[in-house]
Amino acid sequence: MAAMTPSNPSLDELVAVLERTPASLAALLEGLPDTWAAATEGGQTWSPYDVIGHLIHGERVNWMPRARHILAGETRPFDPFDRTAQLTQGRDEPLSVLLRTFASLRRENLAALTGLKLTKADLERTGQHPELGTVTLAQLLATWTVHDLDHLGQIARTMAKVGAQAVGPWANYLSILKDRQR
Amino acid sequence: MAAMTPSNPSLDELVAVLERTPASLAALLEGLPDTWAAATEGGQTWSPYDVIGHLIHGERVNWMPRARHILAGETRPFDPFDRTAQLTQGRDEPLSVLLRTFASLRRENLAALTGLKLTKADLERTGQHPELGTVTLAQLLATWTVHDLDHLGQIARTMAKVGAQAVGPWANYLSILKDRQR
Repeated sequence: MAAMTPSNPSLDELVAVLERTPASLAALLEGLPDTWAAATEGGQTWSPYDVIGHLIHGERVNWMPRARHILAGETRPFDPFDRTAQLTQGRDEPLSVLLRTFASLRRENLAALTGLKLTKADLERTGQHPELGTVTLAQLLATWTVHDLDHLGQIARTMAKVGAQAVGPWANYLSILKDRQR
Repeated sequence: MAAMTPSNPSLDELVAVLERTPASLAALLEGLPDTWAAATEGGQTWSPYDVIGHLIHGERVNWMPRARHILAGETRPFDPFDRTAQLTQGRDEPLSVLLRTFASLRRENLAALTGLKLTKADLERTGQHPELGTVTLAQLLATWTVHDLDHLGQIARTMAKVGAQAVGPWANYLSILKDRQR
């Protein structure tokens, strides 16, 4: 079983997830009422709408720029990534536009990634993360993938909690309703 | 913000999620390498493949049969639902077939649900759950929806953990890697 003997996914396996995320999120969220799309877990937590804005910002300034930074042999740390940029930028775009923007940026970034024809030696090249220290290109690309899945899980959890009262006694069986906020 | 003042989603709002789940899961999982689709969180936990089998079983014997049971005014409890039936049934079907089966059953079930033209009074009708006692039709339909989201979150979490080692020091930022197993 894969999870019991973890081995690192290959680059092709990472790309297989990265290229599927936009369509999966679009199928889930496109045209969905604000009851779900604008819901949060309370306080400073994010709605599905906010999460898509965050994913777009990552496509623009985080993943491929950092990959290029490593491949250019830069010794200065990566520029810090603003995790809340989406809360103040592009707030007037409808969700359907954000979903298309995300899909389009992801497609361009994966085309650029594939075009790099990375070797095993390239994947072992390192960069300096401003907080975490030395990281490899392979770790950056795995993080890009797991980050997608983390936010897909967050969207599912946030939406599930909209129905927390409505399920009545079944709440006992639905573990997601008891999960952390973030 | 919806999550801070929870109100019960309308039937239309529930259906809006229920009708999107199959396409979202197909976009995520169709053609995905077994590295992801067959991964578990270890022990008796389920792979994405297992989860789709479980969702199919629910379409067949759980949600609409229980809705009809309530509307028929049955006083005996619902038949218990076997939560692990998918671990012993249909294990030879490829994932792509399971995804199509799920989509097809869901479409039929939502057509049947819409055809019932449920009134507010219908939604307040009750049935007897074998463990939870009295539940309403509205609660059953909300549970159907939250159950989808619970399993979408489970799939995201299970897949994320495949990359747990590969992300290196970034694991500190990816909360999903520390989340419960189930």
